[in-house]
Amino acid sequence: MTVLSECRTLNQVEALAFNLPEKDEAAARGATERQNSLTKPPGALGRLEELAVFMAGWQGRERPLIENAQALVFAGNHGVCAQGVNPFPQEVTAQMVANFESGGAAINQLCAEAGAELSVIALDLDKPTGDITQGAAMSEAETLAAMQRGAEAVNSEVSVLILGDMGIGNSTIAAAMAKAGFGGDAADWVGRGTGSDDAGLTRKTDAVTLACAVNAKAAGLDILASLGGREQAAICGAVLQARAMRIPVILDGFICTAATVPLHAADHRFLDHCLVGHVSREPGHARLLDALNQKPILALDMALGEGSGAALALGLLRAALACHNGMATFAEAGVSDG
Amino acid sequence: MTVLSECRTLNQVEALAFNLPEKDEAAARGATERQNSLTKPPGALGRLEELAVFMAGWQGRERPLIENAQALVFAGNHGVCAQGVNPFPQEVTAQMVANFESGGAAINQLCAEAGAELSVIALDLDKPTGDITQGAAMSEAETLAAMQRGAEAVNSEVSVLILGDMGIGNSTIAAAMAKAGFGGDAADWVGRGTGSDDAGLTRKTDAVTLACAVNAKAAGLDILASLGGREQAAICGAVLQARAMRIPVILDGFICTAATVPLHAADHRFLDHCLVGHVSREPGHARLLDALNQKPILALDMALGEGSGAALALGLLRAALACHNGMATFAEAGVSDG
Repeated sequence: MTVLSECRTLNQVEALAFNLPEKDEAAARGATERQNSLTKPPGALGRLEELAVFMAGWQGRERPLIENAQALVFAGNHGVCAQGVNPFPQEVTAQMVANFESGGAAINQLCAEAGAELSVIALDLDKPTGDITQGAAMSEAETLAAMQRGAEAVNSEVSVLILGDMGIGNSTIAAAMAKAGFGGDAADWVGRGTGSDDAGLTRKTDAVTLACAVNAKAAGLDILASLGGREQAAICGAVLQARAMRIPVILDGFICTAATVPLHAADHRFLDHCLVGHVSREPGHARLLDALNQKPILALDMALGEGSGAALALGLLRAALACHNGMATFAEAGVSDG
Repeated sequence: MTVLSECRTLNQVEALAFNLPEKDEAAARGATERQNSLTKPPGALGRLEELAVFMAGWQGRERPLIENAQALVFAGNHGVCAQGVNPFPQEVTAQMVANFESGGAAINQLCAEAGAELSVIALDLDKPTGDITQGAAMSEAETLAAMQRGAEAVNSEVSVLILGDMGIGNSTIAAAMAKAGFGGDAADWVGRGTGSDDAGLTRKTDAVTLACAVNAKAAGLDILASLGGREQAAICGAVLQARAMRIPVILDGFICTAATVPLHAADHRFLDHCLVGHVSREPGHARLLDALNQKPILALDMALGEGSGAALALGLLRAALACHNGMATFAEAGVSDG
């Protein structure tokens, strides 16, 4: 059973917005009071204080803990690759999934370093979604099935959930989803992804323009079916399932963040329990974060995906809670508070 | 014995610039080649790749390691507090040193989280340096003695050194040092520090203007004696000692970075082995980093000192090396490289 098990249509998923678990404001207030009593000038830990209070609210306890962390990386293939939008062959998606499984990718090292248990979920890699320049990526049923895969993957026992993606061609998908959600020109959202040259960049931009014209009517969660892909749908499903359990989520870079645009378009409150781990080098990401009213934790000029930026941010979240829970108060330490 | 043991004058310290150990360019090149062979698009790990190559160069091995990390926090008191530049009483410096020693401060939690061994070195807290609005902060002998304390504290066996500071009033000292090194108005360098109100900010700005006028002749390492303090001198000594051993250094925020301005003014190559952990909320810090041609690793709106931002950055350095050493190459993983 997941939060999506009884949903037969995307409209029914959108209706989950009417019954969303909210954060515990009393726990958040208690955490803020604690922060103000710790041996430091008020606010001196900056973003770390905000992160501790955020975690307190969603975990519903004044002293939040990270007892265990889960990282989910969803992989999918995309019909839009037929438009020559990516310099790597589509086979690389499966090759990288094998690399994740044998422990050789960046995300393996970063999860080990940050103390997160990694699972990689390959979604029908041999059946790329429809070419979005020609029509919808997925049927409603395919979209719901991929969302359910994402929801089912969430471990209900974890303290925090990290989400990531792998899919050759999916920075084109992300740009199309962002444009569908927030308007602007295709060029505002398109970047070099895994390393497009100038001609490749033009092909991407043209593909995004055409895809958004062909799927012009898409709104709300239909953006996911029309312009998304299976890994995007799984990310949305995992975000919804985490919310049902009030598990805080750390999103990764441009593609992972763009995957949540349909949820935001349906109801922006769907993303209230989500942090964004980093702002990537992909130029559309900073614009997208502004549009989503999200402030990234890191800015390291990365553009890898895989959940890499989110896994790095987990280390900072751990540090924030270490300070929150471990520091002495002014009274305990006998320090004058001015 | 330290690199400073035979120096009887600040001029002799400056002359160390003629015989500085340099980084190992061959090791750095080897590390760059390794990065380009790993299973990711070239450059996709952004700053993490730069950090791995930086560490390779200074450690002189293609696969650098963090086997152990040392954090040194130097504490001092400042005569300029007589000018009402800080809302906290000067006793707080010693109270916070006691808090460090009993494990209750932010830096204790952050060092534990990042795996760094913390030492706190209180420098004659009962003898504040001279009020810089009235003359020089320290004699040449006092400056050299404090530098030597810093140099002696460096453990020659460590893989990386984190530096931090504690000292009520030392954001005023930092602003004066930055202005002496890089010009501009006092207001360009002065911020609210631990929480000055508007009147306190005016007192700080006036004190910095006056201090820089009174000590207008200071240049090179004499900026340290004229406008610095003992913890600033100890930071400079530790930076020099680390350089002699080619130990990479992570500097902390505004005050710690400003402490190195005299070294930069004497010869900018003195700081080639230094990273800066974060850009702080203190407005002068971003300007100072530009002037020093330094790119901070983190930007978390913090303004605490204690080495807190440097300790957080250590976690990212560890993650960078975990990727560098642990990832599979394209050939190893059987992934097509495009």
